[in-house]
Amino acid sequence: MNHLIRIQCPDRVGLVYLITRILSVHSLNITEMREFVDETAKLFFTRIVCTGNLETDVLLHNELRQHLPEGSAITINPKKEKKIAVLVTKEYHCLGDTLVRHFFNTLNAKVCCVIGNYNDLDAFTTKFDIPFYYISHQDKSKETFEAEMLQVLDEHAPDYVILAKFMRILSPQFIDSFPERIINIHHSFLPAFIGASPYRKAFERGVKLIGATAHFVTNDLDEGPIIEQQTIQVNHTFGVAEMITSGKEIEKAVLSRAMKLVFEDRVFITGNKTIVFE
Amino acid sequence: MNHLIRIQCPDRVGLVYLITRILSVHSLNITEMREFVDETAKLFFTRIVCTGNLETDVLLHNELRQHLPEGSAITINPKKEKKIAVLVTKEYHCLGDTLVRHFFNTLNAKVCCVIGNYNDLDAFTTKFDIPFYYISHQDKSKETFEAEMLQVLDEHAPDYVILAKFMRILSPQFIDSFPERIINIHHSFLPAFIGASPYRKAFERGVKLIGATAHFVTNDLDEGPIIEQQTIQVNHTFGVAEMITSGKEIEKAVLSRAMKLVFEDRVFITGNKTIVFE
Amino acid sequence: MNHLIRIQCPDRVGLVYLITRILSVHSLNITEMREFVDETAKLFFTRIVCTGNLETDVLLHNELRQHLPEGSAITINPKKEKKIAVLVTKEYHCLGDTLVRHFFNTLNAKVCCVIGNYNDLDAFTTKFDIPFYYISHQDKSKETFEAEMLQVLDEHAPDYVILAKFMRILSPQFIDSFPERIINIHHSFLPAFIGASPYRKAFERGVKLIGATAHFVTNDLDEGPIIEQQTIQVNHTFGVAEMITSGKEIEKAVLSRAMKLVFEDRVFITGNKTIVFE
Amino acid sequence: MNHLIRIQCPDRVGLVYLITRILSVHSLNITEMREFVDETAKLFFTRIVCTGNLETDVLLHNELRQHLPEGSAITINPKKEKKIAVLVTKEYHCLGDTLVRHFFNTLNAKVCCVIGNYNDLDAFTTKFDIPFYYISHQDKSKETFEAEMLQVLDEHAPDYVILAKFMRILSPQFIDSFPERIINIHHSFLPAFIGASPYRKAFERGVKLIGATAHFVTNDLDEGPIIEQQTIQVNHTFGVAEMITSGKEIEKAVLSRAMKLVFEDRVFITGNKTIVFE
Repeated sequence: MNHLIRIQCPDRVGLVYLITRILSVHSLNITEMREFVDETAKLFFTRIVCTGNLETDVLLHNELRQHLPEGSAITINPKKEKKIAVLVTKEYHCLGDTLVRHFFNTLNAKVCCVIGNYNDLDAFTTKFDIPFYYISHQDKSKETFEAEMLQVLDEHAPDYVILAKFMRILSPQFIDSFPERIINIHHSFLPAFIGASPYRKAFERGVKLIGATAHFVTNDLDEGPIIEQQTIQVNHTFGVAEMITSGKEIEKAVLSRAMKLVFEDRVFITGNKTIVFE
Repeated sequence: MNHLIRIQCPDRVGLVYLITRILSVHSLNITEMREFVDETAKLFFTRIVCTGNLETDVLLHNELRQHLPEGSAITINPKKEKKIAVLVTKEYHCLGDTLVRHFFNTLNAKVCCVIGNYNDLDAFTTKFDIPFYYISHQDKSKETFEAEMLQVLDEHAPDYVILAKFMRILSPQFIDSFPERIINIHHSFLPAFIGASPYRKAFERGVKLIGATAHFVTNDLDEGPIIEQQTIQVNHTFGVAEMITSGKEIEKAVLSRAMKLVFEDRVFITGNKTIVFE
Repeated sequence: MNHLIRIQCPDRVGLVYLITRILSVHSLNITEMREFVDETAKLFFTRIVCTGNLETDVLLHNELRQHLPEGSAITINPKKEKKIAVLVTKEYHCLGDTLVRHFFNTLNAKVCCVIGNYNDLDAFTTKFDIPFYYISHQDKSKETFEAEMLQVLDEHAPDYVILAKFMRILSPQFIDSFPERIINIHHSFLPAFIGASPYRKAFERGVKLIGATAHFVTNDLDEGPIIEQQTIQVNHTFGVAEMITSGKEIEKAVLSRAMKLVFEDRVFITGNKTIVFE
Repeated sequence: MNHLIRIQCPDRVGLVYLITRILSVHSLNITEMREFVDETAKLFFTRIVCTGNLETDVLLHNELRQHLPEGSAITINPKKEKKIAVLVTKEYHCLGDTLVRHFFNTLNAKVCCVIGNYNDLDAFTTKFDIPFYYISHQDKSKETFEAEMLQVLDEHAPDYVILAKFMRILSPQFIDSFPERIINIHHSFLPAFIGASPYRKAFERGVKLIGATAHFVTNDLDEGPIIEQQTIQVNHTFGVAEMITSGKEIEKAVLSRAMKLVFEDRVFITGNKTIVFE
């Protein structure tokens, strides 16, 4: 049987030996192992896939905890199929890609609900027997708007909230409800063109590349840890509309790749960065 | 015989017909033609390659001028081999690539001199029988420093000044001496990480892509018209040093591509953007 | 009003002038024009977008025909929304992407039907109110199998037949029914790994890139005119399964891009190649 | 002090633990570790960077040998600066890039000599005080030609022989003299367009991508283990000459990257593939 072990702990000499010794005692055979030391933060990160009979995770967990430094975070066999909620506005491309993968069981996650601040994507979503909640932001305070969303989210208890072209800025209170669990797709190669209308800004600046960035959401707008980025070439014939059309292809690809990496437990967060064990 | 015609003029109906009619009268056969209308500026741009016997450019030039709108810029058979001066500091990669191409006659330009504010690249440059001027910026005002460089440049009268990792900021006075004729390679995908130490900033932000930008230099630092941009992937294992090493490959490629495009007269400037007829 | 004009004709001196003169007479103003001469075949190709009032296409068509060389193919304002039939086997990724775009009216085409030689994609297709025909190839001759498909296709009369990971080889007779109108997505960067199991071959060869190719289908298997190709990096950790998973992303992107180009009438075929006016 | 350890051995349970235990006994602290199991060949590969005081490599080597399975290949602290000979014909771009890096001490290798079967690159090479041997292949048997080259190579005793656009096919006898030590840059994305004139073949096939491949040379022409591959986009406007010009940029980049990887001891060969620990 395959087991997945994730460890984050203060760095010190001999950690790889220590960990592999404990796995060896439990007759676990390592088939994949990746590690990284963040020299700035003095933190050690590892993701190990091993095979063997592990009657219970508890013993192994205890033994690791006992020998690893204080402040270690150890995860053994995290939940395989994450539960996610998808927040959208009007654009369909990221949601469409996500729901198609979901329908064919290749998303590595269960979409428990879709929330839209417009109802443009209701008909599409419900085709796939996924509940769509139309929660308008209009004529109400941000507080009320977010409270309505939180009520739905509380009910569904997702592991991750995916902002699939959700065009409202979330409050710190909302974000704090899902620490390191909100993933956003931003339509520029951050940190270029932070904020609103990045394609218009890109057009005005005359760039020869546009891009997209998937990142965890923190209270600093567009400043959270980056998971994945890609760019594509544009040229002088691209107006804002052509950049948007072209950009959608890359937004879709980048968000989908970021979700795959996160749902396979390949991503660690250290400070304002990610470590991605691809 | 091949002829190259470049026209920039106020846009109006029938320009393609008008121009091709005149070329036809001169028995010139179009083999390549690219055109673009900048809708914002209401300007028309074309680059035409044609074959035929053109005893003198003057008649054709006059006829085009006569029929095209006021304010047209017409160039017939621009100088094929541009003359360039290269400004450097300490890094060799862009200069190295440029001088090797020059030595084997594939640069499409003649390097008349290299100016360095350090003398690290003197020995390399003079191997290729190109004069190297060591003009230090130290212990003198920017005015004096630039005056010394201008004296050398005046002597050599280059068509273009190439900033091949020249790490000093030039004054508006200096830049005004070479309007739309200074090309810089900037070590980030502008407008991200404008200014000093872009790789350190990229490292700190935790980006998954780094890039380079070749642009014409204007008085707004790092804000001139972009000619070419490329990016490459990096990951969490890249420190600042690895980003710099990796970035050099792309800086070299981007500058070389930008020079090729400019020296083949494929680039027009419109406002703060370029039109590139590849 | 916008008009689209496509011309393919034997090359000769003065064609651009000739064509633009005729457009000018009809008070049509060119906003985009691309042209190319295939020197090997001595053929001229152009795609022109112009604006103006054209009461009927017939007069312009006649006038162009009258002045252009014998053997010219002229198309004015081709049908904007192509009708397509999609052929599939079991893999969903290309069909999924196509039907989502179709649902949101960004495919530039109307999907009239889907035919599968397995019924795995029936439930998905019919969600979108598109007829799915399950025509098994089993226990019947290729002749019978194709006759059954042709009957469905005759009924729906598609402009293009899209092979969206359709894993059966079609007979010359079938292909002749849709000359230059069948588009296939092949799971390798052709001409590498022609034929069956390209990812297995790629794995065995130890390549560091895999790719996908969209091409028109001719009687020579995998040898038809290439419309679009892309590659992505792989490494020694990729087994065949990982290559297939990774490859699907690029197959989807390449087929979608090829369809966009063809449906916007940007693609010409010359010999065994394509000219793509992007 | 940094140490580099490379191990290739038959796979079995507990190798990572075994190796890290031995390193721990020697008070070596692992800072980087990559491992891979070739499931087909049942071989385990690892590359470890560690720090610590290692008075002599011998003890560690012996202890590893004693505990690792029969048939293990263990390398501790391989020679840092490899010695290389470069073989060329007429094209300068790969040699130029290599000698510039060499001059500025960033090649990670010492170029001991250049051999050309034409003398076109003599003047360039000797500028850098590197001996150039002009050994023509004309009017002599392949045997004689290669014997003359081998004499020079024997004298210089290079660790690697780099075929930097060397356009002669080498005999099995020659290749056997440098097993897994000859690196070639091939001007196509192998296995496409094996053999002569790949760009002509690419032009004729109408591909939309061209590429380059760096690989170890074996007796099967163009069939050796691939180290690195890259592609770039081309289109219908590219003739053979334009493809060659464009391809040179990528050939240069791919060879340079492959050399970097090999010279940093990041590459293992397993069967006809490479494992690259980037």
